Amino acid sequence: MEAVVVHEIEKVTPKSAVLLEGLPGVGNVGKLAAAHLIDELKTRKIIELYSKHFPPQVLIDEKGVVKLVSNEIFYYEAPAGAPDLLILTGEYQGLTPEGQYELCDVILDLAAKLNVTRVYTLGGYGLGKMVPSPRVLGAGTTDEVVNEMTEAGVEFSKDEPGSGIVGASGLLLGMGTLRGIEGGCLMGETSGYLVDPKSAQAVLSVIQKLLKLEVDISQLEEKAQQMDLLASHLKDMESQFTGEDSKSDHLSYIG
Amino acid sequence: MEAVVVHEIEKVTPKSAVLLEGLPGVGNVGKLAAAHLIDELKTRKIIELYSKHFPPQVLIDEKGVVKLVSNEIFYYEAPAGAPDLLILTGEYQGLTPEGQYELCDVILDLAAKLNVTRVYTLGGYGLGKMVPSPRVLGAGTTDEVVNEMTEAGVEFSKDEPGSGIVGASGLLLGMGTLRGIEGGCLMGETSGYLVDPKSAQAVLSVIQKLLKLEVDISQLEEKAQQMDLLASHLKDMESQFTGEDSKSDHLSYIG
Amino acid sequence: MEAVVVHEIEKVTPKSAVLLEGLPGVGNVGKLAAAHLIDELKTRKIIELYSKHFPPQVLIDEKGVVKLVSNEIFYYEAPAGAPDLLILTGEYQGLTPEGQYELCDVILDLAAKLNVTRVYTLGGYGLGKMVPSPRVLGAGTTDEVVNEMTEAGVEFSKDEPGSGIVGASGLLLGMGTLRGIEGGCLMGETSGYLVDPKSAQAVLSVIQKLLKLEVDISQLEEKAQQMDLLASHLKDMESQFTGEDSKSDHLSYIG
Amino acid sequence: MEAVVVHEIEKVTPKSAVLLEGLPGVGNVGKLAAAHLIDELKTRKIIELYSKHFPPQVLIDEKGVVKLVSNEIFYYEAPAGAPDLLILTGEYQGLTPEGQYELCDVILDLAAKLNVTRVYTLGGYGLGKMVPSPRVLGAGTTDEVVNEMTEAGVEFSKDEPGSGIVGASGLLLGMGTLRGIEGGCLMGETSGYLVDPKSAQAVLSVIQKLLKLEVDISQLEEKAQQMDLLASHLKDMESQFTGEDSKSDHLSYIG
Repeated sequence: MEAVVVHEIEKVTPKSAVLLEGLPGVGNVGKLAAAHLIDELKTRKIIELYSKHFPPQVLIDEKGVVKLVSNEIFYYEAPAGAPDLLILTGEYQGLTPEGQYELCDVILDLAAKLNVTRVYTLGGYGLGKMVPSPRVLGAGTTDEVVNEMTEAGVEFSKDEPGSGIVGASGLLLGMGTLRGIEGGCLMGETSGYLVDPKSAQAVLSVIQKLLKLEVDISQLEEKAQQMDLLASHLKDMESQFTGEDSKSDHLSYIG
Repeated sequence: MEAVVVHEIEKVTPKSAVLLEGLPGVGNVGKLAAAHLIDELKTRKIIELYSKHFPPQVLIDEKGVVKLVSNEIFYYEAPAGAPDLLILTGEYQGLTPEGQYELCDVILDLAAKLNVTRVYTLGGYGLGKMVPSPRVLGAGTTDEVVNEMTEAGVEFSKDEPGSGIVGASGLLLGMGTLRGIEGGCLMGETSGYLVDPKSAQAVLSVIQKLLKLEVDISQLEEKAQQMDLLASHLKDMESQFTGEDSKSDHLSYIG
Repeated sequence: MEAVVVHEIEKVTPKSAVLLEGLPGVGNVGKLAAAHLIDELKTRKIIELYSKHFPPQVLIDEKGVVKLVSNEIFYYEAPAGAPDLLILTGEYQGLTPEGQYELCDVILDLAAKLNVTRVYTLGGYGLGKMVPSPRVLGAGTTDEVVNEMTEAGVEFSKDEPGSGIVGASGLLLGMGTLRGIEGGCLMGETSGYLVDPKSAQAVLSVIQKLLKLEVDISQLEEKAQQMDLLASHLKDMESQFTGEDSKSDHLSYIG
Repeated sequence: MEAVVVHEIEKVTPKSAVLLEGLPGVGNVGKLAAAHLIDELKTRKIIELYSKHFPPQVLIDEKGVVKLVSNEIFYYEAPAGAPDLLILTGEYQGLTPEGQYELCDVILDLAAKLNVTRVYTLGGYGLGKMVPSPRVLGAGTTDEVVNEMTEAGVEFSKDEPGSGIVGASGLLLGMGTLRGIEGGCLMGETSGYLVDPKSAQAVLSVIQKLLKLEVDISQLEEKAQQMDLLASHLKDMESQFTGEDSKSDHLSYIG
């Protein structure tokens, strides 16, 4: 059995494409942003990836039908003049460091075949406290990418994130560079306590500027309002138990 | 050394067969059900699987003779018109995610060679409390399988199990689908605290309907009564210590 | 790099040989027994095994010279009529289950080339309390081996050890059987708290009967007396702290 | 994907070379010493090593540009008559025992191609207390190396380090010996609580004698004074909290 099994659903041949990665991570920011693009743009699933580096697990849908854990690539054929998009998402990242490297290696093989010239990886940057207006922090593979991202509103902050970028969002950039694929990481600030559609919104608004895309983000807006409501309920409950001021920006870790 | 060593004891050539998996898991429900079928039907062991994904261990029988940890496949040659059965059981599942995938891959290779067209995986669904009349929950690889299972009395409940199915019971279905082998998972409700012959009985009664098998389940019935007795002793002991009502359905986790 | 590197120091061609395994384990009983045989018999080191399944470590001798962690095989050329011995020992066993399987596989490859027809694995059986007169418990690959071992004074006790035999002492037997190499495991009872030369003595006295060997065990005798002294000091210290009777057979776990 | 990817930046052909290893470890002594040599000598980076045995991570520099985690080899072309130097450093060692072995195997392959005849591995030896005047302890692959090192001021102490040498500093010596490459390990005494430029200085002064190098160590001197200041602040803070005498040589573990 190969470590990563590539299941091609549809053969596409973009002249040039941008790869967007949105796998699960801090606040699920990257996955929310990717899922929103997959829903709003006219995308088709073209590739499924199965791997022994994922949990040995099937998921069950509401009809009772099982589905093996996977990563998936969706394809968006852009109007003439704009680059096509490949959007990578899934239920899990590789479980081990080795698994992470091997999965990203296969994904970059696919990216090279599909004429990907640029990668943007999407994720969250956990601050450990509620973030009313999340900024989008960034990192890039070259000075030019950093400049482009800065112009699109991304902030580069000397000591953030100090620990670098761990997982697919980091590896696709670092390993991509070795193959001549440039790119950057967009990290929406988030508490890290809850899934964060507001942070995903912030990331998407940067993506729209970078890729000159038009995407309706009203659904994310709605989810963000629901999460705000939930967060404020949680804070009320907490202040009842602790007697602390419910206006505090701090919320205990809940998930 | 190969990751999985297949030791073929007897060559059989079923025209078509159903694979039943009953490896250790929650409440040992699947293993109990498989063991009962192996005992009651006229089965022969045809394959032993050894693997570096199992614990590095031998077991010792009552005569002092050692046996390397293994998985085993038993063969039941059905009367004309009914499908033959291959029953997979063993002492352990693979220790790591990678091991689980590699073992299931080899088992599905064997299943394909032995003309398996359907897989049923048997297991328990832990509720964390005593279950007087266990239902059998299910999941299937297609809508048709789900319908067939529903007709045989399996219940499909929208949020159960919410976390999907982990281990061989999930992988054999998910990886089987990629090879065109259909099937379903039968999960007997169980507390998760004790081995549960009553839940195994419930699973077996569904299997009998699905496969039009006749199996005497009186021995499981007996074991179930013994476990009921043990559980009620344990509850008495618990209520003595805690002063709680012994009729409570709750029992502390003991194994 | 191969997972296990075999470094052959001297080529030997025994007509038939017995493999004795004495790697580190409970009470270091097996290693002590093997080391004693290596010292007392006229043995030569013929093979060194290096492996990425061992800790990534060198040991330093008293002169300051380093030595890569290894397993080693020593050769004892027996007088005519008796089988030659191959004695396997080392500083560590494989760190992972996979490593254990791969190492034992390579060792059995070597055993087959060196005409090994019988394996005895030596170890300790931890009782969790001091053992004034350790018995030697056993397990064998066939009924015949069990009978031979019984005649040599080994005891076979229905529920001991209930958990089977883990590590090289188990695998060399279990995997050996698959290649037609028979053998048994000799487990000297031991507290498990201290290295136990008395238990190693008991194991060696059985080995002498099984192999019709003559080995001076006075040095082990001496070490055993030193350990008895140490154990009684430790018990005195413990009773001073706890006020318990120092004659108690119980000793806190110290190593 | 290969387990270790060798990225050659510049092809060099030393007639004979000494490999110095300074990867992260206790007190970061080895890495500090290597970094100082790389800065002070006229070195060029000739090789980058990427590996799935490293964390799946990119680091971000102050401009926001990412860099995949790596090990690196720098080259110093010595004046005629002196051996060239290859200096190995990096952000991480291999994460697993297997990874450590595989990385050292590739590094020794490179060393053999680059005509390395001697390896010195640099590290710290943690004492658990502040060390005003660190000694440099050693270990070597042969008696001759031990003698040479002794003449250069290295101390060989019978029971230090009792546990041997773990990681690249040990493996490059132990695995090097199997390929006929000799060498030694230089371990600067250090508390283990803080990065320790003073200990790195001590190691470098031995390296200078062994390799007849002239290196300005004034920058390390400065860093050492800063760390002394920091350590004394920390001791003051500790004594304020505990009421203990701040002159105590003991400092709580802080990193």
